[in-house]
Amino acid sequence: MTTVSDQENTPDSTRMPTPASAEPTAEEIFRAHEGGKLSVTPSAALTTPRDLSIAYTPGVAKVSRAISADEALAARYTWTNQLVAVVSDGTAVLGLGDIGPRASLPVMEGKAALFKSFADLDSFPLVLDTTDNDEIVDTLVRLRPSFGAVNLEDVAAPRCFDLERRLIEALDCPVMHDDQHGTAVVTLAALRNACELSGRELGSLRVVISGAGAAGVACAEILDAAGAGEVVVADSRGVIHEGRDNLTPIKSELARRTNPRGVTGGLDEALRGADVLIGVSAGTIPEQQVATMAENAIVFALSNPDPEIHPDTAAAHASVVATGRSDFPNQINNVLAFPGIFRGALQAGARMISDRMKVAAAEAIAEVAAEGLATDYIVPSPLDPRVAPEVTRAVAEAARLDGVATA
Amino acid sequence: MTTVSDQENTPDSTRMPTPASAEPTAEEIFRAHEGGKLSVTPSAALTTPRDLSIAYTPGVAKVSRAISADEALAARYTWTNQLVAVVSDGTAVLGLGDIGPRASLPVMEGKAALFKSFADLDSFPLVLDTTDNDEIVDTLVRLRPSFGAVNLEDVAAPRCFDLERRLIEALDCPVMHDDQHGTAVVTLAALRNACELSGRELGSLRVVISGAGAAGVACAEILDAAGAGEVVVADSRGVIHEGRDNLTPIKSELARRTNPRGVTGGLDEALRGADVLIGVSAGTIPEQQVATMAENAIVFALSNPDPEIHPDTAAAHASVVATGRSDFPNQINNVLAFPGIFRGALQAGARMISDRMKVAAAEAIAEVAAEGLATDYIVPSPLDPRVAPEVTRAVAEAARLDGVATA
Repeated sequence: MTTVSDQENTPDSTRMPTPASAEPTAEEIFRAHEGGKLSVTPSAALTTPRDLSIAYTPGVAKVSRAISADEALAARYTWTNQLVAVVSDGTAVLGLGDIGPRASLPVMEGKAALFKSFADLDSFPLVLDTTDNDEIVDTLVRLRPSFGAVNLEDVAAPRCFDLERRLIEALDCPVMHDDQHGTAVVTLAALRNACELSGRELGSLRVVISGAGAAGVACAEILDAAGAGEVVVADSRGVIHEGRDNLTPIKSELARRTNPRGVTGGLDEALRGADVLIGVSAGTIPEQQVATMAENAIVFALSNPDPEIHPDTAAAHASVVATGRSDFPNQINNVLAFPGIFRGALQAGARMISDRMKVAAAEAIAEVAAEGLATDYIVPSPLDPRVAPEVTRAVAEAARLDGVATA
Repeated sequence: MTTVSDQENTPDSTRMPTPASAEPTAEEIFRAHEGGKLSVTPSAALTTPRDLSIAYTPGVAKVSRAISADEALAARYTWTNQLVAVVSDGTAVLGLGDIGPRASLPVMEGKAALFKSFADLDSFPLVLDTTDNDEIVDTLVRLRPSFGAVNLEDVAAPRCFDLERRLIEALDCPVMHDDQHGTAVVTLAALRNACELSGRELGSLRVVISGAGAAGVACAEILDAAGAGEVVVADSRGVIHEGRDNLTPIKSELARRTNPRGVTGGLDEALRGADVLIGVSAGTIPEQQVATMAENAIVFALSNPDPEIHPDTAAAHASVVATGRSDFPNQINNVLAFPGIFRGALQAGARMISDRMKVAAAEAIAEVAAEGLATDYIVPSPLDPRVAPEVTRAVAEAARLDGVATA
């Protein structure tokens, strides 16, 4: 296992943003990608006839025969029980959009590298030359015996919602679209600690989410599951409410479940007096709007690489500011969540990743940063080695409490 | 890379069959399979913020953007160009038959371990919960951007012939059903050296193949491609000839291309006066039949774990005997062929694996054993580290000569 070195776990290094001077050059980045970033290695050396007769013929026949008699043994005697398929069709890659499966592959390789580094999970990228949800579901159903879980990645909204829902039903194993729930989990973790700092309760917050794509919808869902006070979601056409025309099915559902006061209009109207702004929109938000928020506002401007509002500008009107960037404090980074979520789910033999498991992951992440909490330290560093084990433990326990565990 | 230690490359160890006393126990075998036999590791450590920003965001975006602008760069900046998908539906696994995809997985993991150990190639198992060729082809076409080549494994005959042909057409990359061509290549290598020992020419041989499954058909094909004299194939119903009723399409094709003298009847008739017997039938062949072969006959009894005729019995009537077993001399083992064949094909950017590439692989394998050739040493040991590099070189060169190379 490649682990984060203990060195990283000092208060200084866990809280220090990356110095800008360390930015790698393009040449260095391309060189590091030559031949790809992954390697599949045997867990034991194959150097003698005896090694061969254990790992391959004739020895392996005993193991195959045993699994054939009892399929449940595959979880024990194959790698699938610790194996995540990282699946993408390349339609919403980073900030680059629909660049296709081949161009998405370096991102998926990176993701697999993170699974190993942070949670000692194996994974391989499966990038798909189709954007048809029927075909993607069929493909993964046929491959079901090959893996133990699916990390869906960089699939465009709104298709990603339908795809994830159908995969969860069809595969009967942990499936999670990380662009939705990874972001939502870390956002909730950060919000819990920001509340702690400003003496607020989650249940009394007024939260505005700017953006109704993958991350925005998932943030609304997890805030609902965690019992947040009031959530209002706005997209490029304004606030989502039940009276609005031409809502997609997913936005109709949002309209039903959020915005209890029936706010209409734009961000302008929504932000007035709000406690929390979560920006997941890839747009910009003017300073004047943020200035109308409540005292001690909390602003998470998560668009990458350009936050909806510059963190320094936001700080003039908010007591806590977070972004998605590594060169500012409070980086909301999915890597805090997905390695431990999948590891915990696989460890518990979970048939799915439930809301309770996601909320438990957020609480575990928040807890790691509890000691030393400050306005510039509401989430642990992405490299903090305490996070993945804590998330793993919390998620596995939540799976058991929720009745979705089988192990 | 996990490589075969140099120790193995001594005349003694390369020629010595596994001592029976070393047979691993069931307990040892199952223990070695706990958690599976493979691990996916990052090629570079991810321990600092800088590492993250190179292998993941924001650095990876540069690489994705470059591939998006020129898809050919995926071969250089992802792992696909050295990546083999090991694909099976679990319908003809070892001697166990149709045990299904889950039970086949330990075999596929073993295969992936061999790819890494012998040719430093990455690979992962894809086991399919369908036996419908249309669905298997569709699935792999959709996943095409995820890998560089396909090793088809343990798919039942006759469906395997149609499946391989269709995958070669649809995927436009190296595809090889190893149970067919791996066996055929090593058999041809052994036959070349057996001819050398007995002063015969391949072109004047009378060869009888017992068995018309995956390996039998491929042996007939490669012998044809290599210019063997006369080939007669027999299945459980007897010799295959053009006058026989109810032949499958693949056997009709065999009838047209083999058996020029139009032999009819059973193995009895076919073996009389034949120079070579290649048993790939999972049946038994009585000593009296082998006794009717030509002087200095060559007998390859390749069924595993029980050869068609015991090698000691065969030796009474033949000058050279080979089996598939590691505890007798002259083991015909696919591992001599597939690692180098795929590595050579990928290195050359081959669009397919042609007959010439297979014959070149056989010649390279035979050549490694040329020095020290003896009736009990017609092929190198499966662990001889010289084999894969020689096969790689020969296959890449043949791909270029054949016009199927692109690199």
